[in-house]
Amino acid sequence: MAISFDSLNFKHKMPIQIRFNDVDRYGHVNNNAYFSYYDLGKVDYFNAVMKHDIAKSTDIVPVVVNLQADFFFPVFYGDDIVVETCISHIGSKSFTLAQRAVNQDTGQVVCQCQTIMVCFSLEAKESVPMPQSFREAIENFEK
Amino acid sequence: MAISFDSLNFKHKMPIQIRFNDVDRYGHVNNNAYFSYYDLGKVDYFNAVMKHDIAKSTDIVPVVVNLQADFFFPVFYGDDIVVETCISHIGSKSFTLAQRAVNQDTGQVVCQCQTIMVCFSLEAKESVPMPQSFREAIENFEK
Amino acid sequence: MAISFDSLNFKHKMPIQIRFNDVDRYGHVNNNAYFSYYDLGKVDYFNAVMKHDIAKSTDIVPVVVNLQADFFFPVFYGDDIVVETCISHIGSKSFTLAQRAVNQDTGQVVCQCQTIMVCFSLEAKESVPMPQSFREAIENFEK
Amino acid sequence: MAISFDSLNFKHKMPIQIRFNDVDRYGHVNNNAYFSYYDLGKVDYFNAVMKHDIAKSTDIVPVVVNLQADFFFPVFYGDDIVVETCISHIGSKSFTLAQRAVNQDTGQVVCQCQTIMVCFSLEAKESVPMPQSFREAIENFEK
Repeated sequence: MAISFDSLNFKHKMPIQIRFNDVDRYGHVNNNAYFSYYDLGKVDYFNAVMKHDIAKSTDIVPVVVNLQADFFFPVFYGDDIVVETCISHIGSKSFTLAQRAVNQDTGQVVCQCQTIMVCFSLEAKESVPMPQSFREAIENFEK
Repeated sequence: MAISFDSLNFKHKMPIQIRFNDVDRYGHVNNNAYFSYYDLGKVDYFNAVMKHDIAKSTDIVPVVVNLQADFFFPVFYGDDIVVETCISHIGSKSFTLAQRAVNQDTGQVVCQCQTIMVCFSLEAKESVPMPQSFREAIENFEK
Repeated sequence: MAISFDSLNFKHKMPIQIRFNDVDRYGHVNNNAYFSYYDLGKVDYFNAVMKHDIAKSTDIVPVVVNLQADFFFPVFYGDDIVVETCISHIGSKSFTLAQRAVNQDTGQVVCQCQTIMVCFSLEAKESVPMPQSFREAIENFEK
Repeated sequence: MAISFDSLNFKHKMPIQIRFNDVDRYGHVNNNAYFSYYDLGKVDYFNAVMKHDIAKSTDIVPVVVNLQADFFFPVFYGDDIVVETCISHIGSKSFTLAQRAVNQDTGQVVCQCQTIMVCFSLEAKESVPMPQSFREAIENFEK
């Protein structure tokens, strides 16, 4: 069920500020830090495209149910990294996010990640249909 | 290529100390923290089973090339979580790690992760065949 | 205003589980990780001594207003570290926490921290007098 | 021994990219994250002013021996925060860094930190006199 990243068009781009304590004892950015980078792209996408302020919302929030990540090249402190995000599929309650991190100096895709998220009601404590406003905003942006 | 977790036998178990700043604004442990938990299991497996001290090794280290993670239930501060780890497959240069986090009070598997790692030489900067000592130690432990 | 740590009696002790990504590129535990360790001691003290479940409380919470930290020795992955905590002073709205991390193999105090916390009402959004129940629990424990 | 921040002139400024997992369950940026923010300012100062690439250096590195931090106001996800850094004192082997985080929308200093660092030789494993090149670069920048 892995999606093909080559056929995707990434319109949303988020430059990443790498932190000193992202780096582990091998001198590489630790794999775990990549997920913070993907989050930066994801949350900005939610804010900018879906007008969904994830830091303030108190009812419906997208939660991760599955992710698949590939790690191609190491990242170093000082690298100029941009996370690119698109939503490649929308279901009734879920959607699929495709993300990749690109080294701006080499052009290399250093890692990529496919994330399945479900719309979840914090109040009802269960998954709910995707709000129509989210769907329209995404379709409008990605088309 | 997702492996079946049900058929696996998890012999290695690592209790996790959850930290206050693992928790995000929803009051849940943030998804990213789970990867630190998997790391605790992984590194202890390397030390205890493979006699490979990842914190000191200067040549061959296992690096992650792919991971697939499922998130089933939220984790809260104070939950009693154990990460279970086994190596489910050994290739020539790579191996597959299966891990899951189990809530000790409910018995629920809260999340699981399959990780493909490759043996990498820090000196040669390329992947290398898995050392025979690793292979034997793993086979001996997992059989 | 630095307190004298030598005259203090530390009754509360919390063993720390060091994580692989606490370690930075020098192979040392990053200074920032120490504050997560102090938090582990602090939150457990609140839970165990003050019967204050910081992960669930919705009104009065102690917030940090000042801290002073000394770093004496590096910590390495695999070190056996215990954080010791005591409350050395109680004011009307604030209290002072003394904490230190001790390497169990060498007996060395590797770092210490003095933290001034104020009781803060999340609802009223202002500092409030320390609840009498906190005061009694602390005095009872520390005496 | 707390320095007076009011009399200082902060020439080095570093905008901070706040991450979703910097935020804790109170909806505030966790205190621990502030130290990552100070590090961003510090490391950039070392690179830009002292021409010292902390991510690559293999011998003399500045290490923290003491810090004193004040927390004045909470920080929220989405706040526009800049860390300001200056070196307020140079000794023979040590120097003092003054840093503060300023909310660009309100102009408020949300927190400040004074850090004493010592020049440490990774090879000799002991403190060493501050290199003359560091001293001159700092004096030149701060004058």
